[in-house]
Amino acid sequence: GPGWVALVGGGPGDAGLLTARGHELLAAADVVVVDRLAPRDLLEALPASVRVVDVGKLPGRHAVPQDRITDVLLEEALAGHGVVRLKGGDPYVFGRGGEERLACEARGIAVEVVPGVTSAVAVPAAAGIPVTHRGVSRGFTVVTGHDELPALPTGSEHTLVLLMGVATLGASTRALLAAGRAADCPVAVVERGWQPTQRTTVGTLGDIAERARAAGVENPAVVVVGDVVRLAHPAG
Amino acid sequence: GPGWVALVGGGPGDAGLLTARGHELLAAADVVVVDRLAPRDLLEALPASVRVVDVGKLPGRHAVPQDRITDVLLEEALAGHGVVRLKGGDPYVFGRGGEERLACEARGIAVEVVPGVTSAVAVPAAAGIPVTHRGVSRGFTVVTGHDELPALPTGSEHTLVLLMGVATLGASTRALLAAGRAADCPVAVVERGWQPTQRTTVGTLGDIAERARAAGVENPAVVVVGDVVRLAHPAG
Repeated sequence: GPGWVALVGGGPGDAGLLTARGHELLAAADVVVVDRLAPRDLLEALPASVRVVDVGKLPGRHAVPQDRITDVLLEEALAGHGVVRLKGGDPYVFGRGGEERLACEARGIAVEVVPGVTSAVAVPAAAGIPVTHRGVSRGFTVVTGHDELPALPTGSEHTLVLLMGVATLGASTRALLAAGRAADCPVAVVERGWQPTQRTTVGTLGDIAERARAAGVENPAVVVVGDVVRLAHPAG
Repeated sequence: GPGWVALVGGGPGDAGLLTARGHELLAAADVVVVDRLAPRDLLEALPASVRVVDVGKLPGRHAVPQDRITDVLLEEALAGHGVVRLKGGDPYVFGRGGEERLACEARGIAVEVVPGVTSAVAVPAAAGIPVTHRGVSRGFTVVTGHDELPALPTGSEHTLVLLMGVATLGASTRALLAAGRAADCPVAVVERGWQPTQRTTVGTLGDIAERARAAGVENPAVVVVGDVVRLAHPAG
């Protein structure tokens, strides 16, 4: 039969947080094209007949460029295969899902987008931090570490979530302070959410960069800024 | 054995978008406490021995107040039952999950929070709209129709998602225009995402309120504001 592509949001990395539809499509796939931050434990349960193409960036080598990933999807589907593109988080939250969908549509390939549990919400949750909470936060903004932070709301009752924000943490905190956020606004950095080695480092806008440096914090990590950080589970 | 509570994000309403962990907990529950916007099709598959407590607001009658919902969770768990609180979307995205978790913890009840696919991302996706897209949008903000809109970024490359925003759509668009967003900024209203009766109404910040009124748009709906709306699937 004709090939197909499914862009599947794999969630934050815990196999239990993949959707039922995601599991169903994995079971039907001929080829699985997988990111580094996708729930990789699931790959071990696949039948030996399924080909796994790993396009994740590993320490010390370059990631497969996006154009090449897209080409793999198109080539495999045009060869008549069912292709699951298993991503970390959600395909449309900094996941390049839109680009891959448009490329498939341009070639007439059937493409399905399956939303996933986004790390922007679920990684803070793993640390006990709700992105909204009655009387504490009435909204949230999700950006990467590089983005237009000064234009964002400055009240500590609006939650900011910075994805992959460790390398830019010093610059981000300076920008937020300069834009008017208070130095005592709580901040948490949650590393390796949903993994056994998960760790949360808590501080304030004024001191989190130094605390994170002292603790040796590194990506993958999600930075949460706002009063909701006070609801985090106690460290332990 | 001792009772327990699981606050389960049910996703945007499609049974396939519930997580594997959510399905597992539903299969283990004695009692399921369910919202109107949770994936209710799943309830039909539960064994007859499972009690379903419906706390969803139905047209023409009042919803069960949050305090009473929390009391039900505590009473059932303290009676030794396994309780799944099945919510629409994610428990921490305007889901009152933090309050319910804290109430359980205060009574010493074991409580697990299971993230879900948030409607803030998945309902736009159902209409073909990615909340981020390379070269189009580098971030997004999620609020309800009532919140501090003027403090948000005004560029059309920052996506705004307004949950349950139909009743306040006129006020929201006026506030965004007053804050500096362009009148030609694209806007979509996606009603009943993931349901067979899903409908998308597209316009601009200048005319969407009138278009929505003319089309008879109503909640549940998600409003998306920003250039990403141009990526929506063609109507049909």
